Amino acid sequence: MAGRLDSLEGCLERHLPAAELAEAKRLLLGEPVRPLDLPREALLAAEERDFELQGHKFEAAPEQLRQPRLVRVGLIQNKIPLATDAPVAEQVTALHRRIQEIVEVAEICGVNVICFQEAWTMPFAFCTQEKLPWTEFAESAEDGPTTRFCQMLAKKHNLVVVSPILERDAAHGGTLWNSAVVISSSGCVLGKSRKNHIPRVGDFNESRYYLEGDRGHPVFETQFGRIAVNICFGRHHPLNWLMYSLNGAEIIFNPSATIGKLSESMWPIEARNAAIANHCFTCAINRVGTELFPHPFTSGDGKPAHHDLGYFYGSSYVASPNGSRTPGLSRTRDGLLVAEMDLNLCRQVNDEWNFKMTGRYKMYAEALAAFAQPNFVPNVIRE
Amino acid sequence: MAGRLDSLEGCLERHLPAAELAEAKRLLLGEPVRPLDLPREALLAAEERDFELQGHKFEAAPEQLRQPRLVRVGLIQNKIPLATDAPVAEQVTALHRRIQEIVEVAEICGVNVICFQEAWTMPFAFCTQEKLPWTEFAESAEDGPTTRFCQMLAKKHNLVVVSPILERDAAHGGTLWNSAVVISSSGCVLGKSRKNHIPRVGDFNESRYYLEGDRGHPVFETQFGRIAVNICFGRHHPLNWLMYSLNGAEIIFNPSATIGKLSESMWPIEARNAAIANHCFTCAINRVGTELFPHPFTSGDGKPAHHDLGYFYGSSYVASPNGSRTPGLSRTRDGLLVAEMDLNLCRQVNDEWNFKMTGRYKMYAEALAAFAQPNFVPNVIRE
Repeated sequence: MAGRLDSLEGCLERHLPAAELAEAKRLLLGEPVRPLDLPREALLAAEERDFELQGHKFEAAPEQLRQPRLVRVGLIQNKIPLATDAPVAEQVTALHRRIQEIVEVAEICGVNVICFQEAWTMPFAFCTQEKLPWTEFAESAEDGPTTRFCQMLAKKHNLVVVSPILERDAAHGGTLWNSAVVISSSGCVLGKSRKNHIPRVGDFNESRYYLEGDRGHPVFETQFGRIAVNICFGRHHPLNWLMYSLNGAEIIFNPSATIGKLSESMWPIEARNAAIANHCFTCAINRVGTELFPHPFTSGDGKPAHHDLGYFYGSSYVASPNGSRTPGLSRTRDGLLVAEMDLNLCRQVNDEWNFKMTGRYKMYAEALAAFAQPNFVPNVIRE
Repeated sequence: MAGRLDSLEGCLERHLPAAELAEAKRLLLGEPVRPLDLPREALLAAEERDFELQGHKFEAAPEQLRQPRLVRVGLIQNKIPLATDAPVAEQVTALHRRIQEIVEVAEICGVNVICFQEAWTMPFAFCTQEKLPWTEFAESAEDGPTTRFCQMLAKKHNLVVVSPILERDAAHGGTLWNSAVVISSSGCVLGKSRKNHIPRVGDFNESRYYLEGDRGHPVFETQFGRIAVNICFGRHHPLNWLMYSLNGAEIIFNPSATIGKLSESMWPIEARNAAIANHCFTCAINRVGTELFPHPFTSGDGKPAHHDLGYFYGSSYVASPNGSRTPGLSRTRDGLLVAEMDLNLCRQVNDEWNFKMTGRYKMYAEALAAFAQPNFVPNVIRE
């Protein structure tokens, strides 16, 4: 169960006096992010379709030689609409349908780039340790039904789609990967990014299904800016964020599936730290709800077998290079977060803070290379 | 001016209903840290000497083969007691005196390792861009008056002292460094750690005074655990934290001097992220108060010349590898934060989350080496 708060920000809004609220929000969220006016039609549609809709705006200083580079990103978090024991094809279709009705609203809000949650076409079933039917949700990244569906969405709604799926790699022995497919607004599959760090923690037994990605840290130059995808567990690895940034990413999406008991205190920290440390925007997306599986499983914690992984706490948010962030989406409801950002802010903050200039990457390349050797001797000083 | 809140946590305590407060604190600070009972004598002395005293406790699970490895660390944040135009020797003496009266209370609280704020024997005068009298505050790390003072403190109070000073390196042409001297409880100078990343941001014109440290990432094996010191601006560089951790640090101190306008929204994020990412404890220390300098200076922001850098917002805290943290010390008052930690928690969290195992350091060593080459080609995919 998700606890009694819908969101931390909502709780503060309800109880703090106005003067203290403003200062508390500044300490909690950074310099205030401005509200983005959303069309009434979108707000009504969101209400009717039963999902939360938030709009926020990150601004940058005007420059002489560059126009503002405004882009609107959309982050979608959602429950699975059908039970996990419904037929696979029906579950996928229901998820396609649910996402489509949210994407339609995203288009009304002028969204240019949209990202769905990790493995969005399926329940997050790796906790069961069972192979069937879950591996049946895997699809070709290049021409599977979900990629074709996303190509349709991209063209119809004129937006870039980031579609994180369980990938079946037919060209390499049918291996599975945890991947994100990036589709341009013209419907072209630009490529894919693979999850670089695989958890072996709690019920996240994912290395039974797929291993660490072999694609490095690709950045996709879309018509709306340079984007990258750091999938789920990669957010715990600062080097993963860094390499996407060193390859030029201005927006890094972090589609995730993570649960309250395990990670909720880390969630507001890690993607936001990455935005600060790398002078870029980061978009953290987590699913919502509790998914019940047909067969009981144990969790390596001495407790009885059970049918669920825990509750996914949503709380998707966008963080900016200047350290500010949006409030989180709900901890319990489906939602669409629309954030307009002026990408000029990335270089402006970079020029102000200079972490790339002061980063000393050559020194760290050598230090990490030494660490990776079997005969590494830690630099320890004893009395 | 520091704004109207003494601390974010205090504000929530005052206004939230009990049930929501507990959940809000869990979302904000992680799993609750337990209060550490402090001797009444210490509480009275702190009140009399006009500084805040907090005590907290981080626990770990019992193990079969290792006893709990309890250590109490003390973090001191303080204003400068004298005006910046008082004679140099008097300013240093007044700071020694102030620190001594806080350390005496730390001993009563059973502190084993204590760390002072960055460049603790002086005002943070680098904003002035003037050399005299500020460089006169520099001292030998090995046998300067402040190191001798700290050796006395260490022996008298039986604790390890981490003493961040402006260092005069006579053996290398009288070069200045921003360093931290580590002194064992027997009064022996174990060694020093130098600031690895130097800011060129806002009024932090420190590269006019000293450059990047040349000592790598030393870890000091004290009788109370393996400690390291990541000085100030190094907290913005995740690789800096990482290398201290790869060298075995269980506690990383981050003595800092940073101001509200520039960094307050980043402050709760960075050291805590480092504790999570590196399975270690981190201790973030910032000074308090506003320091007025004799001559006006400008800040490269188009605004008129002025006499101060801004307000140092204190808010020192300790973060744990499991993502929880203590509340911050006051944003405005001198303070001593005492945190008892069972260092066994570091390996327990490491075994649970495995970031070192899943870190793929060889891949990143190669990627960073490639980035550091002049002919680096970013991995960018275009339509």
